[in-house]
Amino acid sequence: VATVTSATELTGPESAAWRLFMQMQESLRGSIEQQLQTDSNLSSTDYTVLAALSEAPEGRMRALHLSQVLQWEKSRLHHQLTRMCRRGLIERQNEGRTSYAVITEAGRAAQEAARPAHTEHVRQLVFDRLTDQQVQQLADISRTVLNGLRSDVPD
Amino acid sequence: VATVTSATELTGPESAAWRLFMQMQESLRGSIEQQLQTDSNLSSTDYTVLAALSEAPEGRMRALHLSQVLQWEKSRLHHQLTRMCRRGLIERQNEGRTSYAVITEAGRAAQEAARPAHTEHVRQLVFDRLTDQQVQQLADISRTVLNGLRSDVPD
Repeated sequence: VATVTSATELTGPESAAWRLFMQMQESLRGSIEQQLQTDSNLSSTDYTVLAALSEAPEGRMRALHLSQVLQWEKSRLHHQLTRMCRRGLIERQNEGRTSYAVITEAGRAAQEAARPAHTEHVRQLVFDRLTDQQVQQLADISRTVLNGLRSDVPD
Repeated sequence: VATVTSATELTGPESAAWRLFMQMQESLRGSIEQQLQTDSNLSSTDYTVLAALSEAPEGRMRALHLSQVLQWEKSRLHHQLTRMCRRGLIERQNEGRTSYAVITEAGRAAQEAARPAHTEHVRQLVFDRLTDQQVQQLADISRTVLNGLRSDVPD
């Protein structure tokens, strides 16, 4: 059977890869969300923000930089940071027109307490299953797609 | 410099791959969400449900099966289906204690109208950038992780 594929159609292997990828990342997100909530009472978003801040100099980042690192829109980040402020995990600082987020002692403690179980979960779900070569392939594929996404979106 | 890595720590390459992967999939989700909303007034979740139903026999699936395919919890799926019913994209059918979702003519038309631009977007962001070999690698990695996730979660 001859198949005519239009310019926008995905090929069979592309379509199969896309479905598997979408299902995988959806399931992975769900599993990680559940693990973090159950073990540490944090959303995966809380964890991502705390992890980024904990590695920044003095535990502090410009909100703008944080939104770029996380690839989030300003309003989404704003709501997230407001919730985290209320829980005492971070503080905000404003200097002139520049807004910063700073991790608190409580935030640092929460991230450090959550980290081992979270890392172990990620290890079991992903890295215990992949070969070293696949880890490298995943990094290369992710970098390639990410670079394309970033050049699509002007700063 | 000798580095002592505890059992739960990720290695350098694993940690780098994980960050790139997480950023990539977060950015990709955001970009796809925006494209579907702008071009077709559908969320990516709406699209995923419509696409699954449109390929099912008679455009109909058991809600339970849909929740397994999508890897979603029952309550999340329920809210999603309720919203889609209200918009006339799907209908529900109940036979005894079994609940079904059925795509409507309007739902099918919406999915078919949305499909070319969505597929083109995915092609540009992902498949135009990857080699055939990388497409195969992505499928293999996704399948491996997904199989692990599914065996972790008993039905």
